[in-house]
Amino acid sequence: MFQARIFVTLKDGVLDPQGAAVKTALTSLGYERVADVRVGKYIVLSLGHSNREEAEKEVREMCERLLANPVIENYFFELQEVSS
Amino acid sequence: MFQARIFVTLKDGVLDPQGAAVKTALTSLGYERVADVRVGKYIVLSLGHSNREEAEKEVREMCERLLANPVIENYFFELQEVSS
Repeated sequence: MFQARIFVTLKDGVLDPQGAAVKTALTSLGYERVADVRVGKYIVLSLGHSNREEAEKEVREMCERLLANPVIENYFFELQEVSS
Repeated sequence: MFQARIFVTLKDGVLDPQGAAVKTALTSLGYERVADVRVGKYIVLSLGHSNREEAEKEVREMCERLLANPVIENYFFELQEVSS
């Protein structure tokens, strides 16, 4: 069994209204030293695979097809073996 | 300058409809070995702090007050010094 931790972020240069809203909120709470905020997704998958290469290939595919929008988003992931 | 990478996840036992929807979508795409999906937030803050302890304290505070809902969500973060 593997656990995949996937991080999906907007590409540099893509407007992040959610990040901007969080920044405004933090500033109004008094956190003046926050220079920039970017908000992305953090997805944790539990996989029944027994083979690491296969799991890695499939997670990459899932990211490309569903979890991330490759036009405006970057993704990266970490794969960790877990005891079933 | 520091960069904080914050991970906000739903606590175990809290229903995750977004995760359930992603799991259904992945299964219907043929990824049958996905056992569980949890979707959280990944927030990257750029901070103007020069002191690590101070930055850490302030990020923890921001998580408690705004970025996470401590009733239903867990959070953890990593702090990394970056060149300004």
